[in-house]
Amino acid sequence: MNGFPKTVETLISEFTKFPGIGKKTAQRLAFHVLSSSTEKASRFASSIVDVKTLVRSCTICGGISDEDLCEICKNNKRDQTVICVVERQEDIFAIEKTNSFLGVYHVLGGILAPLDGIGPEKLNIQALENRLSSGMELILATSATIEGDATALYLQKIFNDKKVKITRLARGIPVGGELEYTDEATLLRALEGRTSF
Amino acid sequence: MNGFPKTVETLISEFTKFPGIGKKTAQRLAFHVLSSSTEKASRFASSIVDVKTLVRSCTICGGISDEDLCEICKNNKRDQTVICVVERQEDIFAIEKTNSFLGVYHVLGGILAPLDGIGPEKLNIQALENRLSSGMELILATSATIEGDATALYLQKIFNDKKVKITRLARGIPVGGELEYTDEATLLRALEGRTSF
Repeated sequence: MNGFPKTVETLISEFTKFPGIGKKTAQRLAFHVLSSSTEKASRFASSIVDVKTLVRSCTICGGISDEDLCEICKNNKRDQTVICVVERQEDIFAIEKTNSFLGVYHVLGGILAPLDGIGPEKLNIQALENRLSSGMELILATSATIEGDATALYLQKIFNDKKVKITRLARGIPVGGELEYTDEATLLRALEGRTSF
Repeated sequence: MNGFPKTVETLISEFTKFPGIGKKTAQRLAFHVLSSSTEKASRFASSIVDVKTLVRSCTICGGISDEDLCEICKNNKRDQTVICVVERQEDIFAIEKTNSFLGVYHVLGGILAPLDGIGPEKLNIQALENRLSSGMELILATSATIEGDATALYLQKIFNDKKVKITRLARGIPVGGELEYTDEATLLRALEGRTSF
């Protein structure tokens, strides 16, 4: 015998489909399932099914939610005139962790990638346009990558005549970063975006 | 909102129960489930349930199997007189990967750890004793740790009068290892176990 029983092999290959999980880790995870109790394993299995059946996208912002509207869009205390545009649902939680943003979000559901066939029509842009009204602020919080910048640039162009204030996240040296180890591109952006002291 | 919807939170906490999976990785895995199709997610969920319902322990060696007997114990070409004793089911596959061991296995199902309350009675030792007959070889392939060595020593003592040949895996410098970076304990074992050239 060189291989695992078929059911174990199947579970291992399911685990390898996850991002960052290689063959070895998948084996370890599968054996963890094997060694855990039947109750624990079935609780894990049903939590997977639950997530797919109960969680949906917020009808306003596209973020994840247990209901039609997410907690943020439902919250009267959030400033509905400041919309932070992010690529993916999980980006919302990254920004929420700063505990300092009091506006709302809009999830694009991806990023412009012409080579992968992802054009503007595949992103959640029309819904964003429908939310805009004059005087609003649109914070473009796409990734600091070429695709992220291109997507931000695209949004900036099409919403230019909407009388909304369009901003984007500052580029610069990350907190705790040393100058010596900061790459040129980041340093250039940090210089360009220098602020008065 | 600081947190995720409850169902997502549950799935994240389920993932953090796996070995080597921290909070961040668990989030990434949970969002992967969220973003995959319902079919894929339910296939993953049922592969977990399948593993717990279909996979059992081989009645002879205690290894994992889809049937009463595992592929190795069923195989006539395997030498039933050489038993390799391992701690856990997954250790079998580590040795099988060498493609050079033609004997059979016995899974202890753990290792002696008096501080954790794991004594000999909690290990699969009685079944091993029942398999022994004079002239056999018993390869003690427990881990090269204090507990592994203690377990091997214990087995060696209780089976000493069984007229079986008891061996254990060689200790030494791992293949590819440099002398400079080898710890003293390993070097000591490598010296003690030196072989004629």
